[in-house]
Amino acid sequence: MTGEAEAVTAAVLVIGDEILSGRTQDQNSHYIARYLADIGVDTREIRVVPDVEAEIVAAVNALRARYAYVFTTGGIGPTHDDITADAIARAFGVGIEEDPRAIKMLLEVIPADRLNEARRRMARIPLGAELIENSMSKAPGFMIGNVIVMAGVPIIMHAMLDAAAPRLRTGARVLVETIEADAIPEGRYAKDLAALAARFEDVSIGSYPHFSSAGVRNQIVLRARDASKLGAAAAATREMISRLTNNGAKV
Amino acid sequence: MTGEAEAVTAAVLVIGDEILSGRTQDQNSHYIARYLADIGVDTREIRVVPDVEAEIVAAVNALRARYAYVFTTGGIGPTHDDITADAIARAFGVGIEEDPRAIKMLLEVIPADRLNEARRRMARIPLGAELIENSMSKAPGFMIGNVIVMAGVPIIMHAMLDAAAPRLRTGARVLVETIEADAIPEGRYAKDLAALAARFEDVSIGSYPHFSSAGVRNQIVLRARDASKLGAAAAATREMISRLTNNGAKV
Repeated sequence: MTGEAEAVTAAVLVIGDEILSGRTQDQNSHYIARYLADIGVDTREIRVVPDVEAEIVAAVNALRARYAYVFTTGGIGPTHDDITADAIARAFGVGIEEDPRAIKMLLEVIPADRLNEARRRMARIPLGAELIENSMSKAPGFMIGNVIVMAGVPIIMHAMLDAAAPRLRTGARVLVETIEADAIPEGRYAKDLAALAARFEDVSIGSYPHFSSAGVRNQIVLRARDASKLGAAAAATREMISRLTNNGAKV
Repeated sequence: MTGEAEAVTAAVLVIGDEILSGRTQDQNSHYIARYLADIGVDTREIRVVPDVEAEIVAAVNALRARYAYVFTTGGIGPTHDDITADAIARAFGVGIEEDPRAIKMLLEVIPADRLNEARRRMARIPLGAELIENSMSKAPGFMIGNVIVMAGVPIIMHAMLDAAAPRLRTGARVLVETIEADAIPEGRYAKDLAALAARFEDVSIGSYPHFSSAGVRNQIVLRARDASKLGAAAAATREMISRLTNNGAKV
């Protein structure tokens, strides 16, 4: 696919033993990928790593060097297993300190006499980071360089992403057309589809089978930044499916 | 956490533009992580990469060097965007050919006169790989070295994982205890929990808040391979929670 010059890229880094152990299903990476697609940012990679500082540092440094943005979720709460802020500071080679702006945010919901040591941990922010407001529970996320650090609890992460989004550079949105191939097997249209993919090189074309009790239903998904190229490829694909359907291509 | 000598590690590599675009939510990595936990294999990393050969090759080579097993899903169907088998062959530096065993499997469900070029693609297997049976739709997965290559369609992947599991070396299962901290805020038990985590160094202890319309409910999750160590840590954690509850620690 061309049009890469306009693309703004991103990676999502999910931090959490509970995802890797299979205890919790990660919902955040899917939410972020959809959200970013809507604002014209392409998610190019997702990683899930454990609550281990060296692993977080290595992943952050690999991803931030490669993509325009890195979005992390998880590990910024008050307990001992919340080590993301420290890991990010280490990845950037900067110090980390209690941030008076973050303390002020916490004091909006926590009475001063209950702002104990554990809760103050949530105000430890790498030096040079901008805070990201948390309209749900106040303890902020932050952005340092091209890395956006958010909570793991989905509703809090959603609020932080809303707060961070206006600060992002965004590109042309990828347009999508989904064409139902219904009951035509992939193996019947694969050759023709490959020819279309070669012909419309600015359009990314994928084929996705879905199996259910009703049988197999396939979808062909076309993606491009240019509406007219997408339209031409979609028309050619629909014509191909229609031709195969009329030929009775059910097997 | 010690007991690492007994651990058998794994990574999951999800291959698919449709996940990164946010169009489809990946269910496979969660299923695999839970499945592996049940048989004593620890998932240490999950990655999602696009349908781009160089990306797949780089991820496979990084992960297979580091973990006992790598489980891939996606990209082994008949269409032009199914490039996983070729990428795996390239990652291992081996050739790839139509495998007569795989053709035989396909012929169980596809009449010979309909086994066209696209469908034959599903029988292209890297040289030296063992086939993994697919009881759902016959087109096999495969295992080469420590890499297990499976379909992306969930019900087919499940069948392949069942077929692959008996061939895996497995370790001692990680035992889990979940303790409800109910409405006690994390910030109230964080300090005591950190002390318990330091005291029971063979037990991995995590704290997980859940937010819902009913308010916040926290869970403390303890994980260890040694049942008696886990039991001692769980007892100490329950005692701590009970003490805070009796002290009226609701804030």
